[in-house]
This record gives sequence, structure tokens and C-alpha cells, in this order.
Amino acid sequence: MRIHNFNAGPAVLPEEVLLEVQQNLLDYKGSGLSVMEMSHRSAEYDKIITEARAALLRLMGLGDDYVALYLQGGASTQFLMVPVNFCPEDKVANYINTGTWATNAWKEAKKIGKKYHVAASSEDKDYTYIPKTWQLSDNPAYLHITTNNTIRGTEWQKDPEVPAGVPLIADMSSNFLSRQLDFKKYDMIYGGAQKNIGPAGATFVVIKKSLMEQQNANLPTMLDYKIQIEKDSMFNTPPSFSIYVIGEVLKWIEKNGGLKAREAYNIEKAKLIYDILDSSDFYRGTVVPEDRSRMNVTFRLPSEDLEKKFISEAKAKSMIGLKGHRSVGGCRASLYNSLPMQSAETLAQFMIDFEKANK
Amino acid sequence: MRIHNFNAGPAVLPEEVLLEVQQNLLDYKGSGLSVMEMSHRSAEYDKIITEARAALLRLMGLGDDYVALYLQGGASTQFLMVPVNFCPEDKVANYINTGTWATNAWKEAKKIGKKYHVAASSEDKDYTYIPKTWQLSDNPAYLHITTNNTIRGTEWQKDPEVPAGVPLIADMSSNFLSRQLDFKKYDMIYGGAQKNIGPAGATFVVIKKSLMEQQNANLPTMLDYKIQIEKDSMFNTPPSFSIYVIGEVLKWIEKNGGLKAREAYNIEKAKLIYDILDSSDFYRGTVVPEDRSRMNVTFRLPSEDLEKKFISEAKAKSMIGLKGHRSVGGCRASLYNSLPMQSAETLAQFMIDFEKANK
Repeated sequence: MRIHNFNAGPAVLPEEVLLEVQQNLLDYKGSGLSVMEMSHRSAEYDKIITEARAALLRLMGLGDDYVALYLQGGASTQFLMVPVNFCPEDKVANYINTGTWATNAWKEAKKIGKKYHVAASSEDKDYTYIPKTWQLSDNPAYLHITTNNTIRGTEWQKDPEVPAGVPLIADMSSNFLSRQLDFKKYDMIYGGAQKNIGPAGATFVVIKKSLMEQQNANLPTMLDYKIQIEKDSMFNTPPSFSIYVIGEVLKWIEKNGGLKAREAYNIEKAKLIYDILDSSDFYRGTVVPEDRSRMNVTFRLPSEDLEKKFISEAKAKSMIGLKGHRSVGGCRASLYNSLPMQSAETLAQFMIDFEKANK
Repeated sequence: MRIHNFNAGPAVLPEEVLLEVQQNLLDYKGSGLSVMEMSHRSAEYDKIITEARAALLRLMGLGDDYVALYLQGGASTQFLMVPVNFCPEDKVANYINTGTWATNAWKEAKKIGKKYHVAASSEDKDYTYIPKTWQLSDNPAYLHITTNNTIRGTEWQKDPEVPAGVPLIADMSSNFLSRQLDFKKYDMIYGGAQKNIGPAGATFVVIKKSLMEQQNANLPTMLDYKIQIEKDSMFNTPPSFSIYVIGEVLKWIEKNGGLKAREAYNIEKAKLIYDILDSSDFYRGTVVPEDRSRMNVTFRLPSEDLEKKFISEAKAKSMIGLKGHRSVGGCRASLYNSLPMQSAETLAQFMIDFEKANK
């Protein structure tokens, strides 16, 4: 039996995709070998990665003024590559600080000696909201935001407005392709695949080609986006199997109505859980309602003992991944793209039953 | 039917391992989820990565004065990380240049402004041999070698002797765990997994702990070995599925007699092909016999037209991956750890038949 998987990442994948991957594991479509065993330079694999790159842009509604790459090293490596590539000596890297990963992003710019500026922060209220205003520095190289905060459970509900000429760069690791967005507003979008679009080990990076004109020169090879673009995302061997599974997930999203359908489905799942938080004085949501994440629902119970009991009883009923991040405690239900409605319904019913039994 | 896979990497994996992976793809050992869907912080996944790290050291005969990591970005990222971590301002990074990847290694040290020195090179004879002597610079930070040259088909048959106090660092991407070695002679060993031990997307890095005392300070987070060591190879989400498959391959190697048995098997496979090169004036090996790689057998036919015909007829007989690297041309048969004897036998027979028919 498949479990109800509320993991924050790596996370649940569509059963349909896993079945397809399983079926082709030793012999991909009659080729006589596994995708894991294919040369990344073969015609067969070229088709897989080319389609996975094209599907990304297609789902985002982006044209050929953007380029899609699959790299390695996770969002943490992008925290380094973004300022290395796009913050020159005479400019200032701007960041909005909405929690742990957003903090890691600007701290990396600081660590490597770039001028940086935190344009807004929600640290004053323990990252329980998304700042609505910000003050850019003089001479900004870019503005960097984190569109969904996995640990804190907040999400940008509206694309930020930035002055013309200031590139907008977003870490979308934990809400990528979960909702309709005007992706054209962004000059660069990146994230780890392992929450909404595939297994761990691949990082999606989507760059507006015009941004490349502002790239710094003489960079280390593996930190240089230009080299990866020139080599069609294959300067060296890519994480080929992870990219293949991502491609299958993207096909699954397209086949099931694209981002419009995904968004509606995700709203419905999130509503099932938030409605319980709102109608109960047993459960308490940890963030302001208007900035609630549809992906990561964070909440507390009346006591830490009850939280432990909740997590343990849920597990006994085949629901896993409900423990909050170790840095903040409490409970968290991650409701990513591939989580079936039935899992959200099962959790909602369990929350109602648990409240009754423990109030 | 499974094909005969002579790919240079990603390459053939043991059928037994693929069957195990396939069987557990949707439900790993009754856990109700795929390894791809597991939290990297879960007890189940912790067991997988801990075992995969331990097996690496065990197979190499190394104790707890070494540490094993699984990182991302391939050997090319190590070309950057090695000098960043271990070449201080006042020292010189030393390299032996045995072909394309060895060249990329020292060029990266040069690119980031480190002092470097090519201590020996086989460029004078088109990389067809392994240098037997070398001249280190004054004040060497380390000596870096490439133990097997995938493109050229040469392999170090003997560990190099280095003066006491000079760390020996090796890129073993393409012959790792294919033979018995005195791994204790090395201060650091690394490589992409996708040739001998698993799928693409994970990089093995084995470091002698004493080397860490010479590490440079204030490094970018994702380029800092110390951070990865402190976080048990999980500073951020690791390429979890690739590491799982590597763990299964390592179990398969251990179960089948370890490196001693692997080496004997690999010698036998290589002999099948080299014997044909030696007894024929139709096929011509491209490297000096004493430095021949057991992993990548490179050879030429009398003409490029015959090479094309050879590759095409082989493919029709279910043998793939026999085309030489695009930078050197000719033919290449990669005979990695997981290639079955039967594949080498099939190729040998085909080579005999092809010679008869085309001489």
C-alpha cells in the first residue's frame, strides 16, 4: 500500500509516473537498457533532456527569450552562482529575507564578499508574514526573493513589483509549477526539483537571455551559466535519471490540465486543512492568513506532547512527514503538486477525529 | 532483451541491481513509498546513505582516518573544489597531464588564479602513454593525477610515489573500484559515479582527515568540504536516489568477492579484446601496451569508413557505445565493472568475424 506522504522534500511523486519509470527501468521503450545506463550524448537521451527542457518553458508560458537548464547542487549552489554571475563589483545584491533559505541566499553573497542589502525582512515577527514593501539599495544588481518558505509556511501571493531595469530573481524551490504565475516578470527562476517536479539531484534554472548580457566575466567553469547554456545543459554528465523522471512529471502535469488545473487542485487541498485550522481553537496556524502557503501548512497543537502524539498516531494511520522542521518545531503538512486529494482528505478527517479525542 | 552496453559513461549497471531497484520502486521494502519520495532526514534514508558511505571505505580497505562523501556536480566540480580547498596562496598545485580530463583539472586551477605546475605530461605523444617520471615544483600543495583516461584509453598501473608530506589526490572517475589498489597512498580520491559504481548525479569524494588540516579558510559554503563532512554529506538535500543505487552496486560488488574478484574479472574481459588487437594487423590499439586501460579499450581500424561500418554492424547485433570519443575518433569499448563477460565475449567474436569479412 502507498503511504500518505506529507514530506517537505524529497516528496511524493505521481503514482502514474512511478509506474511508468518502474516499467521502463531495465529496458527503456525497447532500447534494451535503463535510462541510468544511457550515454548522455546518445540520440535517445538527447530526446529526453531536450523534451524536459522544452516542457519547462512551455508550462511556464515562456518563449525562446528564456533558456531552461538542469544543473546540480541544489538551490544552495544557486545562492553562490547568482551573485557570482550577476553581481558586479560596483553594484549591490538585494534580497528580501523571509526565512531560513532566504537568509542563506543573502548570507552567501555576504560570505563571498559581494556588496549586499536586505531590502525587507519579516524577521521581526519570526518570519510569519511576507513583507509588502521594501527599500532597494542604490545601484541594485538584482532583487532576490524566495517565493515559498518551506519551513515557515508562507508564500508570496502576488509577484513583487520592481523598478524597470532591476532583474527579479526567485528561488521557487517549494512552490514551482504549483500555481499560475506571470513568469515573464522574472529574469531568473531556480530551485531544487525534489518538492514539486521530481526526485532530488537536479536543479532547474530558467534564465532570461537578456540577463546574460549583465554576466560577470572569468568565472570558474562549473559556476558559469554561460558555459551551461552554450553546452545545452550538458557541459559535463548531467544527473540524467533525475532529469528523466522530471520530464515524466512535467508530461503528467501537462496531460492533467497544466498549471491552471494544478492550481485549482492545490487550492482545494490546502483549503481542506486551513478550514480546520480556522474553525478550531485546538489547532493554531503559525502564519498570517493572507500569506499562507498552499504548499506547506504549518500549525501547532495546544502542547508539544499533543504534537508528538498527533505525529505518532498519524504515522500509525499511514500518514508520514507531519513533523515541523527541526528548527521551528510544531507540525507541517506539505501538500505538493503530486499529493493526491485523498491524502489531504485523510489528513483532514484525522485532524477532526484527533481533536475530538484529545480536546 | 538487454543490450551489450559498451558506453563510456553513464554505463552498464548490474542487471541484478536494476531488478532490485525496479522491484522496490514504488514501495521500498514495505515502507509504502519510493526512495525518490523519502525525506533525506528520515531514519530509513539515513540507513541507506550511512551504509553507502561505509561500504565505500570498507571496499577500499580504509579506516576512520578517512571520510566518504557523496556530492554533486561531477569530477568537473572537484577540479574547482580541490585547489579552492587545498592550494593556499603560497603553494603550487601540481598536476600530471594525461589527457582531456587531466588537462581540465589543471586548467581550472589556472583559471581561478592559483599557482600551478604541470609536473609531467604525455601530450608530446598525443597522450598515448602514462609518464613514468615527473618533476614537482617547489612548495607543492599537492600532486593530482587521473588514474584512468577514458578518452585516450590509458591507465596508471602502479601508484605514483610522491615525497612525504606532498598530498596525493586522484580523479578515479573511470577506474574506481575496478582493481585492487593501496588506497592508503592517496590523501583524496574522487570521481563521478556513472562509470563503475552507479548512475550519474552523484560524485564520490574520499578524504583523509589529516588533509583537512591544510584546508583554506572562508570558502563558499557549497565548495567547502568541511561543511559537508560536518553535516555527514547532507548539508543540503543529497542526490538521494543516485546514492541509493550506488549503495546497491557496492553491495553487489561486496557480495561477489570484492575488489579482488572484480579485478580478476576485469582483467579477463580486457584480455579478450586486447588479445585480438595484438594478434591482428587489422585492428590497431592506440596506446602503448604497458599503459593500456582495462576499462576503456581504444582502437582503430584500417579506415574511417571501416570504423563506421564496424560500429553500425555492431549496433545491428545489439552492441552499443563502440564509437570513440568525438574529440579523437576511432573505436572504444568500455568494459566497466558491471559489464558481463558475455558482452566482452560477444564483442570479441564479432571483431574476429568482422575482420574476416572485411580484410
